[in-house]
Amino acid sequence: MNVKVMIEGEEEVGSTNLWDFVDGHRGMLKADALVISDTSMLARGVPSITYGLRGLNYYQVEIIGPSKDLHSGVFGGAVPNPLTILCETIARLHDKYFRVAIPHFYDDVARLSAAERKAIKSLPWKEDDFRTMVGAPNLCGEKGFSILEQLWCRPTLEINGIWGGYMGPGAKTVIPSKAYAKISTRLVPDQDPQKIAMLVKEYFRRLLPPTVTCRFDVLSMGKPWVAPYTHPIFKLAASALENGFGRKAVFIREGGSIPIAAQMSDAFNIPCVLMGFGLPDENAHAPDEHIALENYFGGIKSAALFYEQLATL
Amino acid sequence: MNVKVMIEGEEEVGSTNLWDFVDGHRGMLKADALVISDTSMLARGVPSITYGLRGLNYYQVEIIGPSKDLHSGVFGGAVPNPLTILCETIARLHDKYFRVAIPHFYDDVARLSAAERKAIKSLPWKEDDFRTMVGAPNLCGEKGFSILEQLWCRPTLEINGIWGGYMGPGAKTVIPSKAYAKISTRLVPDQDPQKIAMLVKEYFRRLLPPTVTCRFDVLSMGKPWVAPYTHPIFKLAASALENGFGRKAVFIREGGSIPIAAQMSDAFNIPCVLMGFGLPDENAHAPDEHIALENYFGGIKSAALFYEQLATL
Repeated sequence: MNVKVMIEGEEEVGSTNLWDFVDGHRGMLKADALVISDTSMLARGVPSITYGLRGLNYYQVEIIGPSKDLHSGVFGGAVPNPLTILCETIARLHDKYFRVAIPHFYDDVARLSAAERKAIKSLPWKEDDFRTMVGAPNLCGEKGFSILEQLWCRPTLEINGIWGGYMGPGAKTVIPSKAYAKISTRLVPDQDPQKIAMLVKEYFRRLLPPTVTCRFDVLSMGKPWVAPYTHPIFKLAASALENGFGRKAVFIREGGSIPIAAQMSDAFNIPCVLMGFGLPDENAHAPDEHIALENYFGGIKSAALFYEQLATL
Repeated sequence: MNVKVMIEGEEEVGSTNLWDFVDGHRGMLKADALVISDTSMLARGVPSITYGLRGLNYYQVEIIGPSKDLHSGVFGGAVPNPLTILCETIARLHDKYFRVAIPHFYDDVARLSAAERKAIKSLPWKEDDFRTMVGAPNLCGEKGFSILEQLWCRPTLEINGIWGGYMGPGAKTVIPSKAYAKISTRLVPDQDPQKIAMLVKEYFRRLLPPTVTCRFDVLSMGKPWVAPYTHPIFKLAASALENGFGRKAVFIREGGSIPIAAQMSDAFNIPCVLMGFGLPDENAHAPDEHIALENYFGGIKSAALFYEQLATL
């Protein structure tokens, strides 16, 4: 059995160069299956195979009001404040049920089957653990869906950063010329990243008053991915995980995004096995990111068993 | 004639220590009049005496959602995003006519007299110059008032700074734990800074959903000030300015704030003459702040004439 190992370091910035490399080396990369270890386990001690990921579009907006920073005493009351206008615009991107308020945003979202909703409901997942991990006074999410459905199967729009004006200690009475936000949308089948980017951009611009101008950049786009786990390789993977962790593996989706999964499984028409060994509370993308040692060793054992059995397939 | 000169360097951070000094040295500071040169001229070549200032309250808010920064893929869709909530809250602080939407905010605002509105309307002030100076695609302000009335005689609420989440180049898919804003209110007679601070704080807190907590700090408070210019000293000042600049002086209000003016004229019960030599387009509180040389020299000449004549009063 041949194993081809591909390592990339650009996933967090949208995998700018990966697809061009894959597309340009199809012969070299030809394979019977794709295995990626960049997902999470459902919970501590529960080995998991991920069969669905959300897609991700990332945007940056710049709102420009006055041509330079102004004194809020001398000018305040008669001039547009880009910070206020940015807030007022962002406030109109969701409705009171936490749905994205952009027209046609949900048009292409595939309906969840009763079977899948039931399977998700039966997973060994504890809402209380999730609430503790989040640590907010309360949770909130789209009406009509369970938490796991909100996280895995429903699209979102999040503000990932916002800035403008004076941000230091104490006071400065400024009306800034510019205000900025970083915004992302997580996408689910069958939403098309290009179409969603256009909808978000056009709606955002339409909301703006005639007192400001706006620069709207799409920084990256990535397709959602969901695949049936019917190929025999998934049985092998589940069995290897069960042996590696001493507990039956579950099939889950994930709210995060790995654009290359969709691109490669489309391009090579091969099964894609996402065996990940992280836990949701390990501070991914945040200070103090870490991995539990039991999953590091369990992952090594499972992977060894998996590759050993793969050769017999 | 005795001239007592007082210089402070804390005006931009709320004059934290000035009042205690003044209050503790009333005997030493006793005077017949107070002269301050920290205001602007109405326009280039128009010497101006300011008889009214807005007050200023400055606030900082911190919205806290999750107990730590979270990955927007893994958690997005089910957890409160403090950035979004901050924006949604700020969006509810104004109505569509640019009025502050905080209940009772306008309760104590003194009605503008017909005579003062007429006087303001007759000032040699050009709206086109103001629009050019601001440089925004359009102006906006409270319905029913002229631009100078909006700037001088009406209270405002401005967002002076906002920040949270990822603010660097490119993308980071974070739902931050915290979001921040700096907010200020400019006040006019007869609004009371303490009462307004309470109204702003309580309303802001009331708008917040149960998914977040909030820290709301009042960083500084300052009273508005308007005084009649009937004392003979104003005639002397106007005459000195006319001689110094070769053009008749005008009486104006200003949108900025000098809290010590109200405090000292209250405490000593003396007239307060605000003769300022800056221009509104000289980038006060912003990069490249400057002063026109003609006003530097005109100011010296006017001040010399003023003090010379004061001795004869």
